[in-house]
Amino acid sequence: MPLDLNSDLGEGFGPWRMGDDAAMLDIVTSANIACGFHAGDPAIMRRTCELAVTKGVRIGAHVGYRDLAGFGRRDIAIAPADLRDEVVYQIGALAAFARAAGDRVRYVKPHGALYHAAARDRLLAEALVAAVAEAEPGLALLGPAGTELERAARRVRFVGEGFADRAYTATGSLAPRGVAGAVLSPDDAVAQATTLALSGTARTVDGPGTVAVSVASVCVHGDSPAAVEMARRIRGALDEAGIPVEPFS
Amino acid sequence: MPLDLNSDLGEGFGPWRMGDDAAMLDIVTSANIACGFHAGDPAIMRRTCELAVTKGVRIGAHVGYRDLAGFGRRDIAIAPADLRDEVVYQIGALAAFARAAGDRVRYVKPHGALYHAAARDRLLAEALVAAVAEAEPGLALLGPAGTELERAARRVRFVGEGFADRAYTATGSLAPRGVAGAVLSPDDAVAQATTLALSGTARTVDGPGTVAVSVASVCVHGDSPAAVEMARRIRGALDEAGIPVEPFS
Amino acid sequence: MPLDLNSDLGEGFGPWRMGDDAAMLDIVTSANIACGFHAGDPAIMRRTCELAVTKGVRIGAHVGYRDLAGFGRRDIAIAPADLRDEVVYQIGALAAFARAAGDRVRYVKPHGALYHAAARDRLLAEALVAAVAEAEPGLALLGPAGTELERAARRVRFVGEGFADRAYTATGSLAPRGVAGAVLSPDDAVAQATTLALSGTARTVDGPGTVAVSVASVCVHGDSPAAVEMARRIRGALDEAGIPVEPFS
Amino acid sequence: MPLDLNSDLGEGFGPWRMGDDAAMLDIVTSANIACGFHAGDPAIMRRTCELAVTKGVRIGAHVGYRDLAGFGRRDIAIAPADLRDEVVYQIGALAAFARAAGDRVRYVKPHGALYHAAARDRLLAEALVAAVAEAEPGLALLGPAGTELERAARRVRFVGEGFADRAYTATGSLAPRGVAGAVLSPDDAVAQATTLALSGTARTVDGPGTVAVSVASVCVHGDSPAAVEMARRIRGALDEAGIPVEPFS
Repeated sequence: MPLDLNSDLGEGFGPWRMGDDAAMLDIVTSANIACGFHAGDPAIMRRTCELAVTKGVRIGAHVGYRDLAGFGRRDIAIAPADLRDEVVYQIGALAAFARAAGDRVRYVKPHGALYHAAARDRLLAEALVAAVAEAEPGLALLGPAGTELERAARRVRFVGEGFADRAYTATGSLAPRGVAGAVLSPDDAVAQATTLALSGTARTVDGPGTVAVSVASVCVHGDSPAAVEMARRIRGALDEAGIPVEPFS
Repeated sequence: MPLDLNSDLGEGFGPWRMGDDAAMLDIVTSANIACGFHAGDPAIMRRTCELAVTKGVRIGAHVGYRDLAGFGRRDIAIAPADLRDEVVYQIGALAAFARAAGDRVRYVKPHGALYHAAARDRLLAEALVAAVAEAEPGLALLGPAGTELERAARRVRFVGEGFADRAYTATGSLAPRGVAGAVLSPDDAVAQATTLALSGTARTVDGPGTVAVSVASVCVHGDSPAAVEMARRIRGALDEAGIPVEPFS
Repeated sequence: MPLDLNSDLGEGFGPWRMGDDAAMLDIVTSANIACGFHAGDPAIMRRTCELAVTKGVRIGAHVGYRDLAGFGRRDIAIAPADLRDEVVYQIGALAAFARAAGDRVRYVKPHGALYHAAARDRLLAEALVAAVAEAEPGLALLGPAGTELERAARRVRFVGEGFADRAYTATGSLAPRGVAGAVLSPDDAVAQATTLALSGTARTVDGPGTVAVSVASVCVHGDSPAAVEMARRIRGALDEAGIPVEPFS
Repeated sequence: MPLDLNSDLGEGFGPWRMGDDAAMLDIVTSANIACGFHAGDPAIMRRTCELAVTKGVRIGAHVGYRDLAGFGRRDIAIAPADLRDEVVYQIGALAAFARAAGDRVRYVKPHGALYHAAARDRLLAEALVAAVAEAEPGLALLGPAGTELERAARRVRFVGEGFADRAYTATGSLAPRGVAGAVLSPDDAVAQATTLALSGTARTVDGPGTVAVSVASVCVHGDSPAAVEMARRIRGALDEAGIPVEPFS
């Protein structure tokens, strides 16, 4: 089974930069590109799209709340209809840069607080799905499996995302960061990436066993030199195990 | 010769409104819809696109500087490459709403300070044209005839815009507002709309004569009840004169 | 017992206006002036402060979430420490305009979603109070009586605010808008303003009786001609009943 | 003659950081703190004020155009009255944090494009001076000597600023960066800091000589590790030469 690696990229704004996008684009196969609401600006969006096309990495729209000051990490009680409009706007903006770079947007992934809100709130999940369905033809939706978001994704293809460095609960959902054992050691994370691809299972936080997790893509981070190094190790381990690292189909 | 009437629409933001969009969409044939940089937000963009489609009015992207506080009316010394990116972003965002409403963006018109900057500055004009050419296929560019913008528009179709309520100089360019006689009386404006369509001429500010003006579209305003009434009179005069009011081809 | 009348003013932004500030400043004794986060901009803040000083109306800082698009009406899950900083910022900005106009900021009132959040959330209430205490010496805090906000206001003087056009629950808190009978008719609202001042009681939504409500200021709105007329009637009824309408002491 | 060293600090926004503020606050005696328009946010402003007070560094308001995306480095054709209001707003906001940290704002320095605009445009210079005069009592104005800004500063005390790493023209104004020889080598810059303090002269770009420059403060940068190291060397050279490094009086 092939595995996709995705990462959040283009997360600067104006004079500010975040992460090492060029390094990450040598590691991952899918680029979640910020669209200007929680991060990203037109110049960064163009550059990141061009770099992704050059390196053969698939372009995805990383959509978030309109909250630069909070980096899209704060819950905002947005009306579902407004969320739908804000997501359509962001997808459309990125689509123009993807086209200018000679490709197109292939998928949408919600960012930060919106990621979690769409996982638990049916109305927000449906608004997000509606936006994905209408903004561009043929878009997939990348997000947390087994949630309201997956259930809402009837009109668009849903792709489950997993995390190499996180333990799961017995029901297959991500264990919250605060829980003891929720965050894996670097070595365990590298191992889990391979296990996710080979057996579709992950460690459970509340026992010695594993749990089935339906994952076609694993998220890796690039916001620090240590994170980039970790992503590189994960990519190396997958290559070594003979697991094809390629965009989700 | 048919004539197109265009108007700036969707110029609210958040809780604030400007102009009577519904009334204007019964009068004009082309809607310049703000894209969120100088005015407009995702909800307003969706609503305005839907209303335009319902009323058979053509959708255009009204692109401006990123300056809500100044309503895009202040010159900003933006680098041409940055302008190009900001315009691509805005066109793409509106394109997604046009698509969601069942249509597509047909043209781009610069707003406010950008309108004037692109008329006089070759590098900004070329950046704007480059953005129009790459953001969506087949877009036209609506703007002031006989300027740097028209000269730069080699790769995209240029449509010259005129003003019913303004006098022109002997060389066919718009007389600045400050000049005596530059702004016509309502009656003269109604008459000039018809003359622009029938004979392709406009009044000169600096003499009794007229000057040839190449105009396929006339801009009318809707930001006050008086402006809406004026637009209605112009539309009525064109209808009465048997001039077909329809989108530029 | 004298009564203060307060109103939300200066709620435009850039090219957009909201409400008839000049009319309201002839009616009220306290002006809640928006500080640029949910509405308001530097030019509007200066003008509103100058107008308030000219008309002898007291200046208050109407502080809100950083959310122009949502007009500060959407809950944002802000960290209490960040809220404190955002409120200090807004108070300081308005204080400079109050000083330039020859007066100073006398009180702070939270706006929209922050008003309700500070009423129910102890940590946000304490953050708001801490900001009021440190931003300028001697500021009062205007808000809903009997809430977490009043309980948190130990270091600053708290002034309870009531509503003429709203019914209350038996425990003295505002009945939610959705509840039948929660919004009074114009005639009843005019009567309630007088009752609030004379007997310190308001109508209960869940029975024929009244409830004691500790109110030194009544909020009136000016966002529509009907609202301005309503405010004028309330002011007239208070004047007729011989109730001194003056700033809270 | 004592010399002041000033630096631009607090130039992050939301999740983004710029420069090593803590290191610079051990080197300089005056902190130009961004006020949220070109950079800076409430949390960063508080932290930077607190750190400045802890380290005995003087607090100044670094005011700029409302242009986060352009970092205040792009000319904006703002009306003088609007500039005045935007500057009052920024000073007031920072003043509240300075007060919360136990100190007050002592001076104002314009940033980026506003720095240069206020140097060459009399109306903008006068608007800036008017804002400084009315926002807080007793503020000084730090900026380029021999310019429209200095000439406009009749009502407020003007403090001339110089640059260690830049050559000057024969008339005592800064040589533009583009000119050959305009940017000094690190060694020359260190030497020039001392010369500015000891003899009030700087190198001329257009000849072997020097020119008198009236400078009470020298600006050093901290936006890269090399810049911080350079600032440290300059401070060291001044200390070694026995020049008291202290806030301008």
